[in-house]
Amino acid sequence: RDDASARAARARQDQLTKPPGSLGRLEELAVFLAGWQQRERPAIARAQALVFAGNHGVCARGVNPFPQEVTAQMVANFEAGGAAINQLCREAQADLSVVALDLDRPTADFTEGPAMSEAETLETMNRGAAAVDPGADLLVLGEMGIGNSTVAAALANAAFGGAAGDWVGHGTGSDSAGLALKARVVAEGVARHAALPAIAQLAALGGREQAAICGAVLAARTARIPVLLDGFICTAATAPLHATAPALLDHCLVGHASREPGHARLCDAMGKEPVLSLDMALGEGSGAALALMILRGALACHDGMATFAEAGVAGG
Amino acid sequence: RDDASARAARARQDQLTKPPGSLGRLEELAVFLAGWQQRERPAIARAQALVFAGNHGVCARGVNPFPQEVTAQMVANFEAGGAAINQLCREAQADLSVVALDLDRPTADFTEGPAMSEAETLETMNRGAAAVDPGADLLVLGEMGIGNSTVAAALANAAFGGAAGDWVGHGTGSDSAGLALKARVVAEGVARHAALPAIAQLAALGGREQAAICGAVLAARTARIPVLLDGFICTAATAPLHATAPALLDHCLVGHASREPGHARLCDAMGKEPVLSLDMALGEGSGAALALMILRGALACHDGMATFAEAGVAGG
Repeated sequence: RDDASARAARARQDQLTKPPGSLGRLEELAVFLAGWQQRERPAIARAQALVFAGNHGVCARGVNPFPQEVTAQMVANFEAGGAAINQLCREAQADLSVVALDLDRPTADFTEGPAMSEAETLETMNRGAAAVDPGADLLVLGEMGIGNSTVAAALANAAFGGAAGDWVGHGTGSDSAGLALKARVVAEGVARHAALPAIAQLAALGGREQAAICGAVLAARTARIPVLLDGFICTAATAPLHATAPALLDHCLVGHASREPGHARLCDAMGKEPVLSLDMALGEGSGAALALMILRGALACHDGMATFAEAGVAGG
Repeated sequence: RDDASARAARARQDQLTKPPGSLGRLEELAVFLAGWQQRERPAIARAQALVFAGNHGVCARGVNPFPQEVTAQMVANFEAGGAAINQLCREAQADLSVVALDLDRPTADFTEGPAMSEAETLETMNRGAAAVDPGADLLVLGEMGIGNSTVAAALANAAFGGAAGDWVGHGTGSDSAGLALKARVVAEGVARHAALPAIAQLAALGGREQAAICGAVLAARTARIPVLLDGFICTAATAPLHATAPALLDHCLVGHASREPGHARLCDAMGKEPVLSLDMALGEGSGAALALMILRGALACHDGMATFAEAGVAGG
C-alpha cells in the first residue's frame, strides 16, 4: 500500500464540493483504492471477475440437499451466460472467467482424513494465482461448489474457534435437521484437523475453490490489485491466510454481508465491514460484483467532482 | 400497482437458476418494479433524476453554519457537472435535471409564521409535478437547500411526534451547540404548526423543494413510475403525504439510510427499508442514484438469468 497516494486522495476528498465526510463509505473506498493502485486518482478500467468451482467429498455425509452434479451444471450455466453472476458482471462491467477445478474428482471427505494433500493444495493455489490478470485494476472473487458452505464453516471454525453451530447456516437449502447435521460434520472435521498450521488446515478442510481463492488473493497482493471478496464462503476461504498473517488480506474488501449467520461473525473476526447488505446468500461472486458498482460510483465522485475552489462554492 | 404482473415476476424469480430467495432484496426489488411498471419483466430504459433546490427563512435563526448563497452556488455546480450527483447519475445512467425554486426569495421563518402560503405550496407542488417526465421508467429524487435538515426535522416531528431532539442531527456541519439550537427551533415551529392538517403543515414548515418533491411523488404515482427517494431530507419531505395516506408512498423506495439520526426513526415510522447504507449524509439524490445501480442489477438478473429448465440445472 502506498501511504502517500492514500494521503493525497484523502486531501483531495476534503476539497471536493460536499460537506467533509458526507460521502461516507464512498470516501473511504476511494482512499483505499488510491493506496493500493498507488495513484491519487485510482481508476477501474479493467475489472476481472474470477469464479472458482470445486466438488467436495464431505457431500458423502449428506450435508447438501442438491446432488454434486449441480456444480458442473452451474458451470455450464456460467459459460452459457445464464447465471446471476453473468448479468451482474455485465452490469458492473467486469470480465468474467470461470475456472472449474477437477469437478469429476471431488476432494476427500474431511471427516475421514485431509480433503487434499498439501501438494495438491499448493498446486491449486497456483492455478488460482495464474488465473489473475496482473493488468487488472480490481479483482472480484467468487465460488461455486455444492457442499461448500459446510467447508466454509469448517475453515472459519478452525481459524477462529467457537462452536461449530456458530458457523453453520442454511446454505443452499438445508432444513433444521440438515443444519444440525452440518454442525456435527463441521465439529468432527475441526476436531480432527484444527491443531494443524493454517495452510495445512486449508488442505485438510478446504476444497479446491478455497485453495484457488487463496492463491488468487496472494497473486493480487503481489500485483497490488485490490480485491472484492464475495460473501460467507469466499470470505471463509481466506481464513487460513488471516490465521497466517492478517495483513495478507489488507488489500481485500468484503463485498456483501451474507444472510448466512456465520458471515457477520467472520467479518468481525477479520476486521472487515462489508460494502453491501442486501439479504443475499447466493455466492458466485454476486455480492462482490454488486459492490463493484458502488466502487465505480466512489471513483466517479473522487475523480469527477469539482473542488470548492474550482466551483466557486463557499465553505472549502 | 398491478398484482398480476408482480405475481408473474415472483413466479419467474422462483424458476431462475439459484436457490429460492438467494438474491434477497434484489428479488423483492424486481417484483416491486414489475408491479408498478405493470409488466413481468420491468426495465429501466429511461431513469430521470430531479434535484429541487430551495432557500429557507429559518436560516435567520442561525441553524446552518453555511451562508444561504451556497444553495445557488451548488446549483451552478450541478449545472456545470461538478457535484457528486452529476458523477453518480452518469455512472447510474440517469438523466439529471436541477430545478432551482426562487432561491433569491427564501421562504418565511417558520418560527414566526407559515413558511409559505397554501397557494404558493400548491403552485410549487405543481412545479414539481410538471418536472416529471411521464415517459420515465424510474424517478430519482433529491434536494439541495442550506438549512433544510432543520426543515426536514420539523416535518418529521410534526408528522410522527416525539421530541424535536429525536429528529435533528448534525446536517452539513452543526456542532453540539448548533444541534441544541436546531432542536429548539424545530420545537418552536412544531408547537406553532403541528395542529394543522398535513398539507397545511407542509406549507407552514416545509420549503419549496419539499413541496416540489411532494408534487413529483404524486405525479409519478399517477403515471405509475416507481420512485427512489434519497436520504433523510428527501424522505422527510414526503412525511405530509404519509400523514395524509400512507398508500400515497407505496410506489416509493428509500435509496439510502442516512447518517442523520432521524432517518432510521423516519423510515421505521413510514415502513420503508432503505436499499443501501453507506454512512453518507450528502443529499442531492446521491444515495438514490447509487441505489439505482442496485435496481439495475436486480433487473439484469430478473430478465437475463436462465430458468432451471432452460439451463438444464437440477433443483428447480
